Amino acid sequence: MITEYYTPTHVYIGEKAETLAGKIFSEMKTKKVLIHYGSGSAVKSGLLDRVKKDLDEHKILHIELGGVVPNPRVSLVREGIRLSRENNIDAILSIGGGSVIDSSKAIAYGLYDKEMGEVWDFYEGKRVPEGAVPHGVILTLSATGSEMSDSSVITNEDGWLKRGVNTNFGRPTFALLNPELTYTVSPYQTSCGTVDIMMHTLERFFHKGDSLEVTDRIAIALLKTVMDAGVKALKKPNSYEARANLMWAGALSHNGLMNVGYEVRGDWASHQLEHELSGKYDVAHGAGLSALWPAWARYVVKENPRRFALLGEGLFNIQPGADTMKEALETIDKMEAFFKSIDMPTNLRELGINPSEDDIKELAEKASFYNKRKLGSFKVLSTLDMENIYKEAR
Amino acid sequence: MITEYYTPTHVYIGEKAETLAGKIFSEMKTKKVLIHYGSGSAVKSGLLDRVKKDLDEHKILHIELGGVVPNPRVSLVREGIRLSRENNIDAILSIGGGSVIDSSKAIAYGLYDKEMGEVWDFYEGKRVPEGAVPHGVILTLSATGSEMSDSSVITNEDGWLKRGVNTNFGRPTFALLNPELTYTVSPYQTSCGTVDIMMHTLERFFHKGDSLEVTDRIAIALLKTVMDAGVKALKKPNSYEARANLMWAGALSHNGLMNVGYEVRGDWASHQLEHELSGKYDVAHGAGLSALWPAWARYVVKENPRRFALLGEGLFNIQPGADTMKEALETIDKMEAFFKSIDMPTNLRELGINPSEDDIKELAEKASFYNKRKLGSFKVLSTLDMENIYKEAR
Repeated sequence: MITEYYTPTHVYIGEKAETLAGKIFSEMKTKKVLIHYGSGSAVKSGLLDRVKKDLDEHKILHIELGGVVPNPRVSLVREGIRLSRENNIDAILSIGGGSVIDSSKAIAYGLYDKEMGEVWDFYEGKRVPEGAVPHGVILTLSATGSEMSDSSVITNEDGWLKRGVNTNFGRPTFALLNPELTYTVSPYQTSCGTVDIMMHTLERFFHKGDSLEVTDRIAIALLKTVMDAGVKALKKPNSYEARANLMWAGALSHNGLMNVGYEVRGDWASHQLEHELSGKYDVAHGAGLSALWPAWARYVVKENPRRFALLGEGLFNIQPGADTMKEALETIDKMEAFFKSIDMPTNLRELGINPSEDDIKELAEKASFYNKRKLGSFKVLSTLDMENIYKEAR
Repeated sequence: MITEYYTPTHVYIGEKAETLAGKIFSEMKTKKVLIHYGSGSAVKSGLLDRVKKDLDEHKILHIELGGVVPNPRVSLVREGIRLSRENNIDAILSIGGGSVIDSSKAIAYGLYDKEMGEVWDFYEGKRVPEGAVPHGVILTLSATGSEMSDSSVITNEDGWLKRGVNTNFGRPTFALLNPELTYTVSPYQTSCGTVDIMMHTLERFFHKGDSLEVTDRIAIALLKTVMDAGVKALKKPNSYEARANLMWAGALSHNGLMNVGYEVRGDWASHQLEHELSGKYDVAHGAGLSALWPAWARYVVKENPRRFALLGEGLFNIQPGADTMKEALETIDKMEAFFKSIDMPTNLRELGINPSEDDIKELAEKASFYNKRKLGSFKVLSTLDMENIYKEAR
């Protein structure tokens, strides 16, 4: 079994990293950039103005398109492609977090598309992107890892379908990671980001089949760092150290490093179950994940308790003993306690939702594409399993 | 302080990874490849023939140039450039370890050079490479990390100067990592490789100034993996798991990951002191490093004993206590014991050399470029410090 590791994104991490944008575009011989961003925070903080000034100084032309929302919409992507074509844009600059970056990736695919066809085709799997225009990122939120990942998830308002594309062309050309830009991230979003980052590693750690010790050990190193840093960032939002650890660990957790040598690229059932939840109830992704994970973990633990025990030994100093299942369950308890400690929900009640039996049936049916797909690899879940997990998460 | 992380090398790791070469060159639209290798082992094992057959099947033309020796020579590099120009070579394929890869990097620089000037200029710092032709690697030895690194070290027989070039153009285009190809590496070379890989992380771990927790934790993860895997590979040379861990940890230890967030890019004094040793006495690089490191460590420990203690807590389960210096010294003792356990020398005597006072003066003078440079960052070493370390290593 061969694993691919490919992370061409040129990363600069440290104070004032965002000030390199103009210089880099200049070296790339970029002529005109689309600056893409979300709500007003990049405007209000003055970051957008600083970036524009920097581009001006490097004689890089630019236009801008804001308004990206969480679960970014294909309508804005289409608008971005149209605008970029009209203005002869040859590169995109994201200022924001995962939603902005994913929206930019979609624009980059569309703009490169020689057929000039419908961009949603890529997300429906009707066509495969053959490239993307260069795309730089100024990151303002540590969570999704999209700044180095191959993934872009877009929502089509026509039917509210949420679909993803994963290709190496989706990996940003460069990413500027200044931890100071995340000092103003709210406590709630900091906790959600912490969970999101952790889950990118956990989803991969729990797989079926062979593992590689070095990847397991790095997984523990990343998780331990993120847990420490999340707690520290809540206590002291402008801790450079805490924000830097969250930021870099966030990128490494989802750039492919955590797949290397694993026979299967993770489980991902918790993510899929959460997608349905956030689709129906509009909950934050990180919060949805922490609300579901303990129920998922207890439901699947007997498939391979050793894997949970290994995690507990690394993260919580649980002493290896004769009773692996006891260790495994203690690990899940401690992970649950950690989520609580950063004010994250560990069940649906705490998430603020109370789905009926019918709601749960509907969630499981949607998650299973109406019995057409199973989820997970650590334990392969049937539609009934999905229902059971939602129920046990209540 | 901004750290750059840039690892564009497309890595494939796993069984039969080397069989992807033809396919990848074909996708790159390569026409004609120079296959570069070392001694006869790639020939004897049949690997070279298999690779040539694979290239034939993908209609990639190829010529070959073997004969790379440890501490690769600029004369062969020049021969490679000449041969490549005559044959319209547009890509290079290394089959081997660090010496072959470094030699190929030099050829790749020279072949790209529009001025068609003297390649040694790059190594003397007279000119800076402006690019390199594409370069793929089939790795057969886990040690130097050159398969993902930006570094190339070449020796000029005229004066026996050993010089390095570090540029991002030096990073190979792709690297095919099949752990099975290292089953036949001798016990001695396996131990030397283990030390070499460890030292790439240790040299960076011991730096002056700020650190980043996530990088520290990954450093511990890499070191622990390599120590375990080195021992296992000695016991069972065809352990896929041990060889895979050595191989992937070897690449990660020197690709730049271990610099991220560190204020200074490591210490590197042990490496420089070893360069003079292997220049004068023709010892293996890994063995030279393990023979010098304990003396270096004890000489510099008081600069920051906490850093050594942190290493000991992570690697040897040393319990954090009130006496940091005691912890630090225990860490050095245990590291020394580990080197012994894999039959590596921990002083010059065990390395088989017995330099006189005059020899040591000469080594220190050369290492200091005749008092023109100091070494290290954890502790900045004067020529006298260098002498003292060589003496204490006897």
